Amino acid sequence: MSLVIIGSLAFDTIQTPSERREKIVGGSGTYCSLAASFFTPPRIVGVVGEDFPKDVLALFKRKKIDVRGLEIRRGKTFHWEGHYGHDPNQRETIRTELNVFGDFRPKLPAPYRAPGIVFLANIDPGLHDDILSQLERPALVAMDTIKLWITTKPQVLWRALEKVDILFVNDEEVRLLTGETNLVRAAKKIQSAGPRFLVAKKGEHGAIVFGRDFVFGVLGRLCENVVDPTGAGDSFAGGFLGYLDSHAGELDDAVLRRAMGYGTVLASFNVEEFGVRRVAALTLEEVEARMAEFRRVLEF
Amino acid sequence: MSLVIIGSLAFDTIQTPSERREKIVGGSGTYCSLAASFFTPPRIVGVVGEDFPKDVLALFKRKKIDVRGLEIRRGKTFHWEGHYGHDPNQRETIRTELNVFGDFRPKLPAPYRAPGIVFLANIDPGLHDDILSQLERPALVAMDTIKLWITTKPQVLWRALEKVDILFVNDEEVRLLTGETNLVRAAKKIQSAGPRFLVAKKGEHGAIVFGRDFVFGVLGRLCENVVDPTGAGDSFAGGFLGYLDSHAGELDDAVLRRAMGYGTVLASFNVEEFGVRRVAALTLEEVEARMAEFRRVLEF
Repeated sequence: MSLVIIGSLAFDTIQTPSERREKIVGGSGTYCSLAASFFTPPRIVGVVGEDFPKDVLALFKRKKIDVRGLEIRRGKTFHWEGHYGHDPNQRETIRTELNVFGDFRPKLPAPYRAPGIVFLANIDPGLHDDILSQLERPALVAMDTIKLWITTKPQVLWRALEKVDILFVNDEEVRLLTGETNLVRAAKKIQSAGPRFLVAKKGEHGAIVFGRDFVFGVLGRLCENVVDPTGAGDSFAGGFLGYLDSHAGELDDAVLRRAMGYGTVLASFNVEEFGVRRVAALTLEEVEARMAEFRRVLEF
Repeated sequence: MSLVIIGSLAFDTIQTPSERREKIVGGSGTYCSLAASFFTPPRIVGVVGEDFPKDVLALFKRKKIDVRGLEIRRGKTFHWEGHYGHDPNQRETIRTELNVFGDFRPKLPAPYRAPGIVFLANIDPGLHDDILSQLERPALVAMDTIKLWITTKPQVLWRALEKVDILFVNDEEVRLLTGETNLVRAAKKIQSAGPRFLVAKKGEHGAIVFGRDFVFGVLGRLCENVVDPTGAGDSFAGGFLGYLDSHAGELDDAVLRRAMGYGTVLASFNVEEFGVRRVAALTLEEVEARMAEFRRVLEF
């Protein structure tokens, strides 16, 4: 199998109550592929400017992330600035400079065109049809989205859902998208529009996967020191889909449960340091040790 | 073993976005003992006025709840009124008429004085010493509290914690009490003041028990129709402590995990109808069936 990830690569400026970091590397595609790389060699599609650090490209290669789908264009890389309050679940976007990401039209290189899983991570839902038309055979289509598309392009987004197998959304987004406060009813609305699986991410409270005839949930892993929550949701999706891809995209109950566990574990490492720092230095042994510990917290 | 529950018995007037109920029977002691009664015959200590319905006393007796510690005084029963918004986690207290509960000084009847577990449910922490001094031998002391005591009597509350083995609090209260937004750090602060176990209740997001050297959590059970959240936390504590009492107060890992499960299951039934209606009509078979279903949602 193979996992193709289409998402953003960015510079993030992050302010927390105690610290500030200027223009560190982030983006949904970055976080997601680093997390997925523990389970499968992901293929990334995205665009960066000439200012994107060479050492991050070298890191991708060391992690066996295929970067043939990464365009390097004249101009500046996408830049996002956000602030977190004392409650790390609350963040405010200070500015968004799209730069080269603004008119990004994803092109899948020939070797990418028959993936097992394609992940449309936080990109304009208006681009989905064009991307999916580049695939030579049907793949399992996973998608994440953000408040921006829900509020500015709701109709395009609902149409895009028709072609999606697995939707990742956080609980605020799921309510915004459906107008439902009850998660069970919201999940039904979304599933009736297309997705076989809805993965509702609840930040520190965990995540729940709703299938057609089953539901399964995990608590968030408890973290004593949350340094930077940026990218936690992308790392979750990366761990989840990477693990799924390593199991040939089988969507059976046991595989989905473990995918939820690995997603949670990757997200929990992600928040321990700024940016991709912790996950970039992580070993598979550390991932497995934390997965075993997490299992003990959850097991009846 | 035996479980003594000291708490409120009340009339609740409840307004939800779709319905209103005037003066239905509630109170922490009521919810908690009904939930506990599936596992152990609890003993209740509390006070009601002459207006308290005889059929509820009859219900208690049918459920094998010992009411010898229930005082019936001249005057009116405690009355609370609260409103819920579209998000059932948010409630507003409209009024509180303490009535006969105002100068309640709990007296334990002689047969109650050597319990296995004593549960101090939401009563003035200034009363704890007097209650504990009525016990003939040390019992496992469990306690719940509310925002009112945290904000009006914080020092009395912290001192009361020194004698507590298991503290139940919701996540808003835990933050208010400790000034910590991070739950792990907040739990450590509370445990260093006395309680061996902290059970953090997170409403629909589940619950986490922090022990000295272990932590265990469950998600909330997903409910499609939350009719009335009143008493969910008390039903959780009742199911938890009732189950614990039926296992001779053993605090081992496996028993605590199942206690968390049963607490969650009882709370999930509680919210399906107004007041105690659903739990009063519940059978042990229904409890076990939902516990088995809940286990399937959580199991890796």
